[in-house]
Amino acid sequence: MNFKLTAKDPQSKARAGVITTTHGEIPTPIFMPVGTAGSVKAVHQRELKEDIDAKIILGNTYHLYLRPGIGLLEKAGGLHKFNGWDRPILTDSGGYQVYSLSENRKIAKEGVMFKSHIDGSSHHFTPEAVMDIQRSIGADIIMAFDECTPYPCDYTYAQKSMVMTHEWLTRCISHLAATPFKYDYEQVLFPIVQGSTYKDLRKQSAEFIAQQNQAGNAIGGLSVGEPHEDMYAMTDLVCSILPADKPRYLMGVGTPENILECIALGVDMFDCVMPTRNARNGMLFTSQGIINIRNEKWKDDLSAIDAALGGYASTFYSKAYLRHLVINKEILGAQIASIHNLTFYLWLVREARMKIEQGIFAEWKNKMVKTVSQRL
Amino acid sequence: MNFKLTAKDPQSKARAGVITTTHGEIPTPIFMPVGTAGSVKAVHQRELKEDIDAKIILGNTYHLYLRPGIGLLEKAGGLHKFNGWDRPILTDSGGYQVYSLSENRKIAKEGVMFKSHIDGSSHHFTPEAVMDIQRSIGADIIMAFDECTPYPCDYTYAQKSMVMTHEWLTRCISHLAATPFKYDYEQVLFPIVQGSTYKDLRKQSAEFIAQQNQAGNAIGGLSVGEPHEDMYAMTDLVCSILPADKPRYLMGVGTPENILECIALGVDMFDCVMPTRNARNGMLFTSQGIINIRNEKWKDDLSAIDAALGGYASTFYSKAYLRHLVINKEILGAQIASIHNLTFYLWLVREARMKIEQGIFAEWKNKMVKTVSQRL
Repeated sequence: MNFKLTAKDPQSKARAGVITTTHGEIPTPIFMPVGTAGSVKAVHQRELKEDIDAKIILGNTYHLYLRPGIGLLEKAGGLHKFNGWDRPILTDSGGYQVYSLSENRKIAKEGVMFKSHIDGSSHHFTPEAVMDIQRSIGADIIMAFDECTPYPCDYTYAQKSMVMTHEWLTRCISHLAATPFKYDYEQVLFPIVQGSTYKDLRKQSAEFIAQQNQAGNAIGGLSVGEPHEDMYAMTDLVCSILPADKPRYLMGVGTPENILECIALGVDMFDCVMPTRNARNGMLFTSQGIINIRNEKWKDDLSAIDAALGGYASTFYSKAYLRHLVINKEILGAQIASIHNLTFYLWLVREARMKIEQGIFAEWKNKMVKTVSQRL
Repeated sequence: MNFKLTAKDPQSKARAGVITTTHGEIPTPIFMPVGTAGSVKAVHQRELKEDIDAKIILGNTYHLYLRPGIGLLEKAGGLHKFNGWDRPILTDSGGYQVYSLSENRKIAKEGVMFKSHIDGSSHHFTPEAVMDIQRSIGADIIMAFDECTPYPCDYTYAQKSMVMTHEWLTRCISHLAATPFKYDYEQVLFPIVQGSTYKDLRKQSAEFIAQQNQAGNAIGGLSVGEPHEDMYAMTDLVCSILPADKPRYLMGVGTPENILECIALGVDMFDCVMPTRNARNGMLFTSQGIINIRNEKWKDDLSAIDAALGGYASTFYSKAYLRHLVINKEILGAQIASIHNLTFYLWLVREARMKIEQGIFAEWKNKMVKTVSQRL
């Protein structure tokens, strides 16, 4: 994997670049749609490529491990072959999902024991096991096994957890070095900075992560309920420590506003379920602002969903038709809204990239944040 | 509207033809996907056209009248403009849905009082009102307001109901003659033969309907639970009476086997929710037979869903991937299965048409019925 910085914004820490993987190039900043169980919900693979122009998608290790299971994924030759998505894939480590199970998991130094949400069966995720699993899934970018602390989190726990995450990282790196590639292409590791909302812990963690000299680095444990100012402060601090010549991935973020603000702080990669999950509830992100399509206001509005974006879903269907579908719980409503929201997110990062290249990102960002956050 | 017969099968009563409407040509025999509330469930309009190659779709008057409502459909300029489907549309009369409400409707000579399944509000469908509603929806083919009798149905009720359906038809025809077109294109009426499973009533009804000299004719009140032999016997009888130079539409039918058998009896048009509804439950109709994709048997089957069909859904995705999606209740599972099943149904009628043109339909049909009905 290769990362090349191509432009820097003079008025912010925003950067533009290109990540090159075996499965193709990823221009940064980039937003990565989430395909939890090997499908970006309600969206065909063809639509992801041709309409949304996603450059990389996510898979969730926890879900894919439980179903369809590693055996079938290996038999298929990895997730790319299984679901037909031939551009890059990033998998998380399962840490976040396991942490979400709360009652059904036990965290120890060795790893995490948890019970499947599907059938209650017991499983053990260790750093080594999770590296093997992600290799079998076949992601281009695999994430280190970490603990994502909740918010709020007391200092002692956050510190202890961070130390354990660092120890787990060392085990991930050793295990990858000691075992061969699974498929005929490169799979790189991104370590994850933790430390909750404590500056000294974040600094310590970022320094530790930076020293590992991996292909890219991630910031975890944010967007878990903390105030936006804390998210921005931690991101800013961590970005100032992580190496500039490696891509920086802020996990699980976020709203269009969050993304623009964190691009300004030097983040290159984002993922979030928000565009697809909110789409299924009738919430649309558009180039003009946020629309709750269930609102009576859109009942008779026969204009395109978002003509400024271009693309099938956003221009072919009207707001009134989409509202009708959503109110009627028609599956097509979820489909259209999901394609539209992802088209918007990918449009937003493409626009951001262009403004960085033109050296006018900061000013554009300040205006755009207001536009995309307003409720229409 | 114009109907031209282009070929007849020498060994059966199967015919091939072309219906010409303002919104395009419909080769017959044809299957019409059902788009209840202005959407063929889980399928984009683009997919209906480019992948499935549907030539005409259905809308349900009852559903469209309640939501989005006639006011909005008129404002949009009709359903074609509202949902972006620019090929022909046929709307039912609402009779079938109203009859399904059982507890919440009262049938009288004047019309039917019913309560909305959505909010319990009261509505009155008369033959005149239903003609106005269908004109406002803007269907190319509108259906007469009829009563669809249940199965079994006692003779006295079936006879009384048939007489009323005939009286309602006279009122439909008079009302259409007395009122102007709604939009700038032709909308034609198809009357409906009733008479339950009684030969003398079916004969009487078919003769009455045939005399009306409308653009096409329909057979209603079948596929409501009667044995297949009864369905075929009634269809055969009615087809022998309905004029040969008008298209014949068998409403609500059916399985691939039913469709092939009824093509052999001289039916030209079919509709059914089965391919989409069953798709959402993981039941696939394929050129090799019927598949329950939830079955363990398909777990590791990485072959295409139905390579023989061609088309995106049937060839891009594997059985194992589709099974994984369906088991996981992923929306994409419903999407893929729906496109596939409709692709199959349209493939089946295209094949049938070709065999009729080649004069080898009957023999092909006998083999094909066995193939498409077998469980794999």
